Amino acid sequence: MSARSGRVPEVVVRRLPVYLRVLEELNETESPIVSSQEIGRLTGISPGQVRKDLTNFGVFGKQGVGYRTALLRRELRRILGLDRLIPVGLIGAGHLGLAVARYDQERERRHPGGTCLMAIFDKDPQKIGTTVGDLVIQDVAKLEESLLALGIRILILAVPATEAQALVDRAIRLGVRAFLNFAPVSLKVPPGVVVHTTDVGLELEALAYYA
Amino acid sequence: MSARSGRVPEVVVRRLPVYLRVLEELNETESPIVSSQEIGRLTGISPGQVRKDLTNFGVFGKQGVGYRTALLRRELRRILGLDRLIPVGLIGAGHLGLAVARYDQERERRHPGGTCLMAIFDKDPQKIGTTVGDLVIQDVAKLEESLLALGIRILILAVPATEAQALVDRAIRLGVRAFLNFAPVSLKVPPGVVVHTTDVGLELEALAYYA
Repeated sequence: MSARSGRVPEVVVRRLPVYLRVLEELNETESPIVSSQEIGRLTGISPGQVRKDLTNFGVFGKQGVGYRTALLRRELRRILGLDRLIPVGLIGAGHLGLAVARYDQERERRHPGGTCLMAIFDKDPQKIGTTVGDLVIQDVAKLEESLLALGIRILILAVPATEAQALVDRAIRLGVRAFLNFAPVSLKVPPGVVVHTTDVGLELEALAYYA
Repeated sequence: MSARSGRVPEVVVRRLPVYLRVLEELNETESPIVSSQEIGRLTGISPGQVRKDLTNFGVFGKQGVGYRTALLRRELRRILGLDRLIPVGLIGAGHLGLAVARYDQERERRHPGGTCLMAIFDKDPQKIGTTVGDLVIQDVAKLEESLLALGIRILILAVPATEAQALVDRAIRLGVRAFLNFAPVSLKVPPGVVVHTTDVGLELEALAYYA
């Protein structure tokens, strides 16, 4: 839970799913063993960094040989907590929210287990009651009872910047500790709560440096 | 241009728009001077890191006082290249593409100058010819001539994973050097080309660690 934040730098935690993605795409029969060089080549991360990141979690390869593919995959899923079901909620069923929901439903179909989108909320009466895949869009006024009933642990925000902070405050009071925020706003949260903000504007401005 | 990649670590470049965002929100009359402590408080980045990042680009504050707000804002825009117009293109007018386009048009309205979305492409005949804000969706078959005619420098990809690499290859041949990729795929590009990939699946898996 919140005790995990702070132990290992967030930048390291963010690389673990990148390694896992590569391992999930490897054919185990063809590649029963995978080296840090191979992981490095497939991810663009240096082999030394790969080994160092994994050592942080007590995962060591065999010198000059590498890691057992199936074991490393299982270990990474366990470290990330993806060996359990993690209920995810989404607020905002506009274009962005719908894109995220459909993308995530497709991803779950391909890689079942781990994070699972279990509720979508909106405030628009035209949208409430309509379906996205197998989920019915719920009234955000009922956010509290739904979060509790479903045990939502991660909340995705695809709402206007002006609405994000109040929603985060409501969810934190119910024990949600992890947010993926698409609103172009810097959210204030207490220690132990993690927010990843994805802001297209900031991405474009950083890319302008290279353009 | 491509010579810029490699000089300063990408992680530093990515923080510059975060500083700029804060400076754009400061009222210059109330805050003619801003300290690294204040920037740190508003961004959640340590004051020492703020000073170190800016020093990389030859930008120094006055010891014990800080930076002149207007000057620092202008310097950051110049360093990022946002003092020129940077034409941006977008491929994919599905839910995600439309969300990105509308968000960006709104952002440009509030902060004119710098990156500017100038073309949207799709392959769906139902979408080609329809409008998004003041832009008409173009046939992606005409990508090459449009990129050249408009001088597109940054390309946003909101297409399925299977289509992204071929589109990147086409754009690189025309001199595009910066990509913002929303497809859940690791793109292969030659040195000097920068790709930022935003993948909801990877974000959720990293957040699972804290959930």
